[in-house]
Amino acid sequence: MIKASVISIGSEIMRGRIDDSNSTYISRWLNKLGIKVQWRLNISDNINDIIEALEVVKNSNIIILTGGLGPTDDDCTREGLSKFLNKDFIFNENIWRSIENLFKKRDIKIPESNKKQAFIMPGGEFLKNRIGTAPGIFYKENNKVYILLPGPPVENQLMINNYLFGKFKDNGLIEGNIISRVLRVYNIGESELADFLAVVKSPCDLGYYFSQDGWIELHISKYSINNDNTLSEVDNTLNDIVQILNNNNIFYTEDKDISFLLLNLLKEKKMKISFAESITGGNISGEFTKNAGASEVLLGGIITYSNEVKIKLLDVKKETLNKFGAVSKECAKEMAIGLKKQFDSDISISITGIAGPTGGSEEKPIGLVYFGFIINDQIFIKKEIFFGNRLRIIKKCITFALIEVYKNLYKKSN
Amino acid sequence: MIKASVISIGSEIMRGRIDDSNSTYISRWLNKLGIKVQWRLNISDNINDIIEALEVVKNSNIIILTGGLGPTDDDCTREGLSKFLNKDFIFNENIWRSIENLFKKRDIKIPESNKKQAFIMPGGEFLKNRIGTAPGIFYKENNKVYILLPGPPVENQLMINNYLFGKFKDNGLIEGNIISRVLRVYNIGESELADFLAVVKSPCDLGYYFSQDGWIELHISKYSINNDNTLSEVDNTLNDIVQILNNNNIFYTEDKDISFLLLNLLKEKKMKISFAESITGGNISGEFTKNAGASEVLLGGIITYSNEVKIKLLDVKKETLNKFGAVSKECAKEMAIGLKKQFDSDISISITGIAGPTGGSEEKPIGLVYFGFIINDQIFIKKEIFFGNRLRIIKKCITFALIEVYKNLYKKSN
Repeated sequence: MIKASVISIGSEIMRGRIDDSNSTYISRWLNKLGIKVQWRLNISDNINDIIEALEVVKNSNIIILTGGLGPTDDDCTREGLSKFLNKDFIFNENIWRSIENLFKKRDIKIPESNKKQAFIMPGGEFLKNRIGTAPGIFYKENNKVYILLPGPPVENQLMINNYLFGKFKDNGLIEGNIISRVLRVYNIGESELADFLAVVKSPCDLGYYFSQDGWIELHISKYSINNDNTLSEVDNTLNDIVQILNNNNIFYTEDKDISFLLLNLLKEKKMKISFAESITGGNISGEFTKNAGASEVLLGGIITYSNEVKIKLLDVKKETLNKFGAVSKECAKEMAIGLKKQFDSDISISITGIAGPTGGSEEKPIGLVYFGFIINDQIFIKKEIFFGNRLRIIKKCITFALIEVYKNLYKKSN
Repeated sequence: MIKASVISIGSEIMRGRIDDSNSTYISRWLNKLGIKVQWRLNISDNINDIIEALEVVKNSNIIILTGGLGPTDDDCTREGLSKFLNKDFIFNENIWRSIENLFKKRDIKIPESNKKQAFIMPGGEFLKNRIGTAPGIFYKENNKVYILLPGPPVENQLMINNYLFGKFKDNGLIEGNIISRVLRVYNIGESELADFLAVVKSPCDLGYYFSQDGWIELHISKYSINNDNTLSEVDNTLNDIVQILNNNNIFYTEDKDISFLLLNLLKEKKMKISFAESITGGNISGEFTKNAGASEVLLGGIITYSNEVKIKLLDVKKETLNKFGAVSKECAKEMAIGLKKQFDSDISISITGIAGPTGGSEEKPIGLVYFGFIINDQIFIKKEIFFGNRLRIIKKCITFALIEVYKNLYKKSN
């Protein structure tokens, strides 16, 4: 398998001012082509560090350096590579003229310091930069390929997309590709899920990736050289896994957001939804609203943070609040019924709970949540205790409520 | 100067599935303490790669490894470090019991595979993980410090914030520190802001960092070994800048979220707030709710995505909707008045607009938004046109509404 390494150079990365998103983009791009990313290194703009980094990755077939191609003194990626390869870089008249032209177009006098951007090793090829001044470089020596790309993400990505695939093909660096499918699995620990799936016999790789708010991403992938039957192998594995998940009542989606899935299911069924939110304070409706087309299914909602509002707008009885409290199944039920009266939606969901950091007790701890669901005319209440800080509890409430509705409707249509 | 290196381990990073945000967070944190980040390395979960990586960074004083502390077979950060240090890790009964307890609390049977999380080298100290099963490890040998942190960002950051500063202090790893203050400046371009501030004479570094939703972060910082007069230099620079911003009517906050600032201002003034949200669908209330103590000031809200709900719950007149449409200053005004009737809050805010991607017209383009404000008994309407996709428009609405209220109240109290 062909191996690549990425050296990403820049002080703003080392100071934590920005994520090294170039390395992420490059890794994903290489991974799809079936090229293994062996090392990713971040260093400051410093010649000695660059030489040391090149030494570390010397066993890779492809070495990509990004950043440090600018005109200022601290930009020294070219110099670093020149020293490492022990090759003097030479001035290229043609590329210098094209950089000059870029400045002319922008009506700016070109600083002398930009000259260093026109230097290249003998045998190297420039990669044209359509939106910035720094050209990239592609260089092959002893079956090893060195690529220099500019740091600004837009320039970096444009250059990858425009030139690298062709160059890799021409130089025999692309043999096959990785075929993969993703499942997002809800509310199960990584090790527990692995236990369930231990029986799956498959030639594919299974990867478990921690995701957020109760989800785990499960990647089923296989490297394929000539596209033979890899696709069906991946699909068969996916089907086997889906069967196990279904048999064990483990909820999953196929790499889509749950609010997006529910929105589309409701559209399909022409059903309207509304929410009465206490603990989540509008965040469930808000999550829904982020999707285009929300207005087709979301009638609206009532945010009832205070007891007075619960009484006034949702018709919750004062005695219920006095006797059982606002965080109780009784209150959740009355909230849902009151909401149904106000909006007459096909689906009415109420939610009341304690998000913390204060307000918990032994009897009613932080994270205790009651959900009331009225789907068509069927009513049911769910009680959950979520762990985490205030924000995580709120997020778990959102996911839980949406999944419950989705599961309920999806079951009915299958 | 003390030097640190970060080794971030995980296949999901090497495949480009996620940004290595842990390294960014750690770098920024170290940078503030005046500790130089020398190397940042990313590798897959592979014992030999971990050993090689540890070899690369062997000249650093502090070596932080993140990720690969999970229970599954591919998690091998502990084993890698154990081999590199040539030290057998031993089972720790106490920490195993605390992991068991975590599972018990969640009412889940603990898998045998989690046992590996209770192994540590002799002389190492566990760092407690309050929200996940994998404890961290702190270990000192020959004036070199090794730190193992879990991969999930929330666990990673919590552990850094809770334990590392103290451990660094105790072990003499913090000599000086970077004293810095941050201003978040709203609704101005970076170069325009730089022009305004060109007159500031200061021994401090000024950094401009692009932030989101209309904010720019301005960092005023200086490295200080013995705390002499650096603090007052930084503060004086801050004061100079604040004066220029105020003189030019440029809105800023001191590195705090606007919903947090407004919440506290309302608490101080003992004022209650409520929202009638159409375009934002609950996201303004939701933003508020994320802050602890929201219940002290937020009464609730009404989400009126459909016209019927605007009429029924907010008393918007049918004729108004027919004549001017739901996205109009007339509708925004009636929504605010209707909301005030329902909740009788000190502050009532309504918002109606077009988030797209469809529904815009020449006369009423996507991004057109009307806000109605009733603060005590004074009523005013604001019209804005925001650019960007659906999500950005919604976010800009949130920021705008909260800033308007904040500015209005803040003015009155100063």
